Amino acid sequence: MDAIALNCSLKSAGGSTQVLLDEVADALRSHDVGTTSVRVVDLDIKPGVASDEGDGDAWPDLRRQILDADIVVLGTPIWLGQPSSVVKRVLERMDAFLGETDDQGRMISYDKVALVAVVGNEDGAHHVSAELYQALNDVGFTLPASAVTYWVGEAMQGIDYKDKHPRPEKTQSATEGAVRNAVHLARLLNAQGYPAG
Amino acid sequence: MDAIALNCSLKSAGGSTQVLLDEVADALRSHDVGTTSVRVVDLDIKPGVASDEGDGDAWPDLRRQILDADIVVLGTPIWLGQPSSVVKRVLERMDAFLGETDDQGRMISYDKVALVAVVGNEDGAHHVSAELYQALNDVGFTLPASAVTYWVGEAMQGIDYKDKHPRPEKTQSATEGAVRNAVHLARLLNAQGYPAG
Amino acid sequence: MDAIALNCSLKSAGGSTQVLLDEVADALRSHDVGTTSVRVVDLDIKPGVASDEGDGDAWPDLRRQILDADIVVLGTPIWLGQPSSVVKRVLERMDAFLGETDDQGRMISYDKVALVAVVGNEDGAHHVSAELYQALNDVGFTLPASAVTYWVGEAMQGIDYKDKHPRPEKTQSATEGAVRNAVHLARLLNAQGYPAG
Amino acid sequence: MDAIALNCSLKSAGGSTQVLLDEVADALRSHDVGTTSVRVVDLDIKPGVASDEGDGDAWPDLRRQILDADIVVLGTPIWLGQPSSVVKRVLERMDAFLGETDDQGRMISYDKVALVAVVGNEDGAHHVSAELYQALNDVGFTLPASAVTYWVGEAMQGIDYKDKHPRPEKTQSATEGAVRNAVHLARLLNAQGYPAG
Repeated sequence: MDAIALNCSLKSAGGSTQVLLDEVADALRSHDVGTTSVRVVDLDIKPGVASDEGDGDAWPDLRRQILDADIVVLGTPIWLGQPSSVVKRVLERMDAFLGETDDQGRMISYDKVALVAVVGNEDGAHHVSAELYQALNDVGFTLPASAVTYWVGEAMQGIDYKDKHPRPEKTQSATEGAVRNAVHLARLLNAQGYPAG
Repeated sequence: MDAIALNCSLKSAGGSTQVLLDEVADALRSHDVGTTSVRVVDLDIKPGVASDEGDGDAWPDLRRQILDADIVVLGTPIWLGQPSSVVKRVLERMDAFLGETDDQGRMISYDKVALVAVVGNEDGAHHVSAELYQALNDVGFTLPASAVTYWVGEAMQGIDYKDKHPRPEKTQSATEGAVRNAVHLARLLNAQGYPAG
Repeated sequence: MDAIALNCSLKSAGGSTQVLLDEVADALRSHDVGTTSVRVVDLDIKPGVASDEGDGDAWPDLRRQILDADIVVLGTPIWLGQPSSVVKRVLERMDAFLGETDDQGRMISYDKVALVAVVGNEDGAHHVSAELYQALNDVGFTLPASAVTYWVGEAMQGIDYKDKHPRPEKTQSATEGAVRNAVHLARLLNAQGYPAG
Repeated sequence: MDAIALNCSLKSAGGSTQVLLDEVADALRSHDVGTTSVRVVDLDIKPGVASDEGDGDAWPDLRRQILDADIVVLGTPIWLGQPSSVVKRVLERMDAFLGETDDQGRMISYDKVALVAVVGNEDGAHHVSAELYQALNDVGFTLPASAVTYWVGEAMQGIDYKDKHPRPEKTQSATEGAVRNAVHLARLLNAQGYPAG
């Protein structure tokens, strides 16, 4: 089994989103699941809702990697209490899954499990997970119990997750639980996928 | 396998939410899953976040029925583009699941699958499903691919789902798909539940 | 000018929502605006979307107090990252404003300014304000710049706002700013209300 | 008084968002307010949360136009029930307003009024307005009563707003009301802005 982790930070390097995604990847590895990590902001993902938006569009390649994975982890920072524009772009491009079917006539993304990883200086992780859950579920992903890991600081403070020492135990525990459930569910769906309609 | 459908309408009788939930129950029956339907507004579910809020609280009984079911269907109307106060009350009471464990030390609601059914005169189904997905997932439910069925009318119009004839085909198809996926996933989790931490 | 503060806590007494609302009322008083505080959970606000849901319904009285005020403050705790069922009930009942006009043919709630006060152990204030802003704005309220004051703790921690000592400065500053803007805007709209259509 | 309308469509030309924004601009003109219309997807708005993200960033120019306007209209399509990635990018860039003050020490965006225009084949306008209201209000904008105009079709249908003939009356009426309120409020705030802290 393989996972892909999409870092949907606004930054080209470093950052708290990557720190949390690395912790998710470590947890996946402890279940023998390898993770490819992609920093989406560095790719030229064109605006649109087709599977290929033409010349120079980096989505077709990323789409292929997503469809090849068993577990998809969306990692996003919080800005103004909401998901990043980068993760929104990814979800918009996944909209095309709604019109694409596999050889059994099912939505092309079926049998894949999604996880969400959210970090912010403060406030917004539950809402970000709500937005991502709904969009991911609409385009065919299955959500295991407790499908999010997150960290946010106290209201209107400015601490970053990457600078928190020692590492927040509650977040570590959420990461382990989310990954454990995702791996279990992905194995079940791998062995016995959703029936055709 | 058994399902429970919670009608979280503001009304004590009739209504479009029940019509859609009846269609969900029919679809479940076609998969040999029986459904108990409960109209929550008729019960005295006390405000609070404990599993028993004392004298006259109807939640402990409803909670037991929910924990006995394999599939939980939350049905809600849309008001002002948002979930009803009744379904919010139900979710608040489920908050207590976060602190309750089964004999394996897992959250007491694990291995259950949730579906969402949403109706409104207009606009709001995606957001309502986002709110419900996140709250349900936080308290331990698993969400199958395409976990919502819904109907809404054109912007600022006043038609009710119950008065739509012939029945909207897209909604019927969504109902069948959501139920098919939920039953499949509930069977998988019934046979092989999430591992303990 | 007068304000009304609706405490939409799930609890009948005490709590952090009241502490924050008291701070809002203090700030309003410093601008010579008196505030009536109401604990909504103690009232029998019937489910429904009419202005009077019949026998024993406490809404008609509360509705009158809301319509008599110049500034309406909605105070709510966060549960599962979302607004309380109690504040949702209030908003549902305000839905009737959409069909009620004053003697100039304008929505009956026009020229009133709304503020939002949100408290939780962790995470959710931005989303709660989004839900409340949209519902309040739909039913005719005007939102001054920076219309929310809030406090939440670090992710997955259990501290209450009422137990925070010293008082969080950022929240105090947000309270003062929100109140200052609300009073200014209410005075402008009091002197010169929205034109009729 | 001047308005700026930001078309946050994913498309470079045509589309229903522009049709609705043109109707908003017509309504503004009837109140003697001129509107500059900008298609954001055609500009190179860099990812980030600073007021200038460096070489080639189109935001500093757009930011100046926004700060020069009295009324800002955000127009967005709905994808998966949510705001577009393009409007999210704009809001992220406005995040910098939180740290910028005018010569009175107030947030630099104060005294400006915002409106929201939303179109989609189906479902999502209320939620999109909630997300935009909260983000806009956080960064200093004032929201007049009934600050949104929108159109969406029946659930899971594929009609576009631009192809609706005759023009939907309810949407036209919402456009006129939102604009009337915005112009009134902008004039009040123009004459008498928020006091300094």
